[in-house]
Amino acid sequence: MPHIEIESHLPGITGLLEYRKDSAAPIRELTQILLRGPSSLTEGERELIASIVCYGNECRFCTTAHTAAANLLLGETTTTASVLNDINTAPVSEKMKALLHIASLVQKSGKQVTEEAVQTAKNAGATDLEIHDTVLIAALFCLYNRYVDGLNAFTPGDPEYYKTLADRIVHHGYTRLPGGYDHLKNNPVQ
Amino acid sequence: MPHIEIESHLPGITGLLEYRKDSAAPIRELTQILLRGPSSLTEGERELIASIVCYGNECRFCTTAHTAAANLLLGETTTTASVLNDINTAPVSEKMKALLHIASLVQKSGKQVTEEAVQTAKNAGATDLEIHDTVLIAALFCLYNRYVDGLNAFTPGDPEYYKTLADRIVHHGYTRLPGGYDHLKNNPVQ
Repeated sequence: MPHIEIESHLPGITGLLEYRKDSAAPIRELTQILLRGPSSLTEGERELIASIVCYGNECRFCTTAHTAAANLLLGETTTTASVLNDINTAPVSEKMKALLHIASLVQKSGKQVTEEAVQTAKNAGATDLEIHDTVLIAALFCLYNRYVDGLNAFTPGDPEYYKTLADRIVHHGYTRLPGGYDHLKNNPVQ
Repeated sequence: MPHIEIESHLPGITGLLEYRKDSAAPIRELTQILLRGPSSLTEGERELIASIVCYGNECRFCTTAHTAAANLLLGETTTTASVLNDINTAPVSEKMKALLHIASLVQKSGKQVTEEAVQTAKNAGATDLEIHDTVLIAALFCLYNRYVDGLNAFTPGDPEYYKTLADRIVHHGYTRLPGGYDHLKNNPVQ
């Protein structure tokens, strides 16, 4: 049960964003800019960065939601699973391996990011902006994971819920739709 | 040296927020809402929550900046130092002790926040909104600390720099001033 009274039909982050809409607006906007705005990283690559951070923080709601989004964007499920299992052997570019490695260091602590990890990314072609965005996306998901688990938000068990949520964030982005999350109302919360 | 090329006269978070202004805008807005917006927690209490998280994450820039802001708002320096040393013996209310305890759990992981820690806060009079805001402020500073240290931003050694910065965030808040951080330009970066 959540630590505070939030609408029971709105699981995970969705109930929290509806609980306090004024603070939710800039969180949504920041996410939209970083994950859906113009970038030399694809939307799928940015969802992989989100996924590896959520996975490292063991946030079940966020991990399931963002791996589902990454899978939908990539058109297959093996890459995301491989990345979460072992970055080094995952079927992604050397640049993405280096950026995912930086993200996984940020997940633990900003101080873990070494000059060497950054240099590896630069040698593989990563730009300053890509390194900046990787660090900020990883930091943002450390916020999300703590927000969701720190308030013990509902975590649905039904995979169908996450498919619907992934479809929403892939096709409509992270900004608030008219009606909020009403279209998710009929999904069971387990 | 920072991991990416940022303006060398802008230390810590200030250089990062100027590096990418579009993502900075919602970060500033969220901080302004949570730390300076209407709340039953004083601005000083909210800066204490920020300080204990920055301290737990060992982010020197953010800890020095927000303890300076808390001190300025509280009008003395002993409370902040006591809170960072031991919440239990600090000269703050039982409610603040419980909220600071929740913030320090969020700093480690959202999953560390127990039902018992939340119940203690509620028993001491904390509202759902105060618990929500404590968790979200703590989560936000986990973002900030990772952003600053993950990119190895400049950390000035001169205490005068932080006094000027604290004066700014106490008297002008977290939104961008015309001219950005130009007034901090003449402070030495060590």
